[in-house]
Amino acid sequence: MSELQNDRYLRALLRQPIDKTPVWVMRQAGRYLPEYREVRAKAGDFMTLCSTPDLACEVTLQPLRRFDLDAAIIFSDILTIPDAMGLGLHFVTGEGPKFSNPIQSAADIAKLGVPDMEDNLAYVMDAIRLTRREIDGKVPLIGFSGSPWTLACYMVEGGSSKDFAKVKGMLFDAPDQMHQLLNVMADSVIAYLNAQIAAGAQSVMLFDTWGGALSTGNYQEFSLAYMQKIISGLTRESDGRTVPVTMFTKGGGQWLELMAATGADAVGLDWTTDIGSARQRVGDKVTLQGNMDPCVLYASANRVEQEVASVLASYGQGETGHVFNLGHGIHPTIEPEKMQRLVDSVHRLSEPYYR
Amino acid sequence: MSELQNDRYLRALLRQPIDKTPVWVMRQAGRYLPEYREVRAKAGDFMTLCSTPDLACEVTLQPLRRFDLDAAIIFSDILTIPDAMGLGLHFVTGEGPKFSNPIQSAADIAKLGVPDMEDNLAYVMDAIRLTRREIDGKVPLIGFSGSPWTLACYMVEGGSSKDFAKVKGMLFDAPDQMHQLLNVMADSVIAYLNAQIAAGAQSVMLFDTWGGALSTGNYQEFSLAYMQKIISGLTRESDGRTVPVTMFTKGGGQWLELMAATGADAVGLDWTTDIGSARQRVGDKVTLQGNMDPCVLYASANRVEQEVASVLASYGQGETGHVFNLGHGIHPTIEPEKMQRLVDSVHRLSEPYYR
Repeated sequence: MSELQNDRYLRALLRQPIDKTPVWVMRQAGRYLPEYREVRAKAGDFMTLCSTPDLACEVTLQPLRRFDLDAAIIFSDILTIPDAMGLGLHFVTGEGPKFSNPIQSAADIAKLGVPDMEDNLAYVMDAIRLTRREIDGKVPLIGFSGSPWTLACYMVEGGSSKDFAKVKGMLFDAPDQMHQLLNVMADSVIAYLNAQIAAGAQSVMLFDTWGGALSTGNYQEFSLAYMQKIISGLTRESDGRTVPVTMFTKGGGQWLELMAATGADAVGLDWTTDIGSARQRVGDKVTLQGNMDPCVLYASANRVEQEVASVLASYGQGETGHVFNLGHGIHPTIEPEKMQRLVDSVHRLSEPYYR
Repeated sequence: MSELQNDRYLRALLRQPIDKTPVWVMRQAGRYLPEYREVRAKAGDFMTLCSTPDLACEVTLQPLRRFDLDAAIIFSDILTIPDAMGLGLHFVTGEGPKFSNPIQSAADIAKLGVPDMEDNLAYVMDAIRLTRREIDGKVPLIGFSGSPWTLACYMVEGGSSKDFAKVKGMLFDAPDQMHQLLNVMADSVIAYLNAQIAAGAQSVMLFDTWGGALSTGNYQEFSLAYMQKIISGLTRESDGRTVPVTMFTKGGGQWLELMAATGADAVGLDWTTDIGSARQRVGDKVTLQGNMDPCVLYASANRVEQEVASVLASYGQGETGHVFNLGHGIHPTIEPEKMQRLVDSVHRLSEPYYR
């Protein structure tokens, strides 16, 4: 493997001194890029794109050719594990992900087992291995997984949901059953992320998209506890370097202190939380990732730069501990020029904070 | 007017001693009740139901006939003001509210004026007057309005939105224009709620459904400031009693201290915030309304009772300051028996907290 040329992102996550704020963007390989839409059209459907290592590698690298990003994130979907468990993931245009065989009973849960990572999920590891070769040490590669609770939401609902009637019905009426499901998902995520690390992921991230739909007590019991279990179960080394872990619960701003106590190196913030106040609350315990409102990118490029400045000012003086990102994924209709301005502004405007 | 027989809800809002926790439920007059669905079917469309005082009064009273509720809320829609301004509100099945003439330019905003409350909005005041007569002093009647920011979201987007691209684009790129829009909406909401109070509303509530989509700074500037303006502009008396004001920002758990400082008598909590911690944070400054997860009602009646007990225990010892509610509106597919158990449990289980 080529030596890593830009380790600003890894250093920030591990709270080591840096020269400016590293930046990457959730969904940076995505529909807002014309070259992505081209590959996506060639692939035909979304799962073909995810499961063909050549194509997944290509779209992972696309944003790096345009923008001076400090990290790449492997192109994949958060629902690969339940798909490998036999739930039959597919995508319906305009409706998002669907499972042909959702979890409907205790019997369905009892049948679930940790999938073989180099069998049904080999395409993810192959994509990581290939991307690590192709990226040639330019920036680190991030691996990721959905959180057990978030995966359970899709598995029980059979797809996206507005009100989480089924999965919360199970949580409230059959908590033991829910814990059984979350346990097998946590074990699977541990195996999945460890396999990604073995394949070359230099940092990993847990996406807890639906933890914010829970009450504080239920968040701790049904989402956070399993993320903590995962963090404890990870092999945290690759190429002789520590592999940092980032945890992101959308809508979790009320629970920062709880997240900072899990052993995660970094906590992702959505844009509703003031990053300066967040820093005061968690101190030096974790690095903070975030957190510009993705909708700022609908405004002019000058306005984007202004808002970058405001997030940097809110975080305040370095010397480390901040990874710039949006508070959620970049939207598909954003013009790439706005992303350009975002990335460039972060680097240019953050330098003074590290002097 | 008949004398008010049950003032537990008003007393709790004003932090006066009570004997048990008052309870009402957002959307308590709604689709989960078969008798509501019957009236709704007769009315034909949703706006006919809202704008026909006889029908609005009838569905407002329906839940009181079944459940021992401590308040009624006038049946209406949050988008009546923009409709009265000429935006052409209509409902598309499965897609929610739509405006035929959304706000698309500075010129559209310049044309907006505070509507005449006894002209285009007379049907709301007539429904309140009629309901006050029919309710015969049994429990107080709540009036309400959407918050300026929430109304602006629908007016600019032209309906519901997942990402708020247009309204946030305006907020970021043309903040002066956005303030102009919010100002005319705040003035309209003041006139609207004052007219409701004059017509007989004994308490009013501001629903800020989309404030939680903003960053902390933008929430303060574009949503909270206008709610504060409204609260200062209200006539706070009816029948010689104080008319309490409740403010509810969904997803606003991070901003409780800010909300408690607006002059509102009560702050509504969604279920993600722990009500015990919320009480510690705001002290005796405001009453707290909430906050059971509406999804608990998908579980068994015994589980509902357990969860009621847990919310009451989290709030803790009285002697006042808590109004029980769900953290958001009751879902349309809930069985009325669950609601029955909820209401009865609140009264029965809360009594010991006031001894």
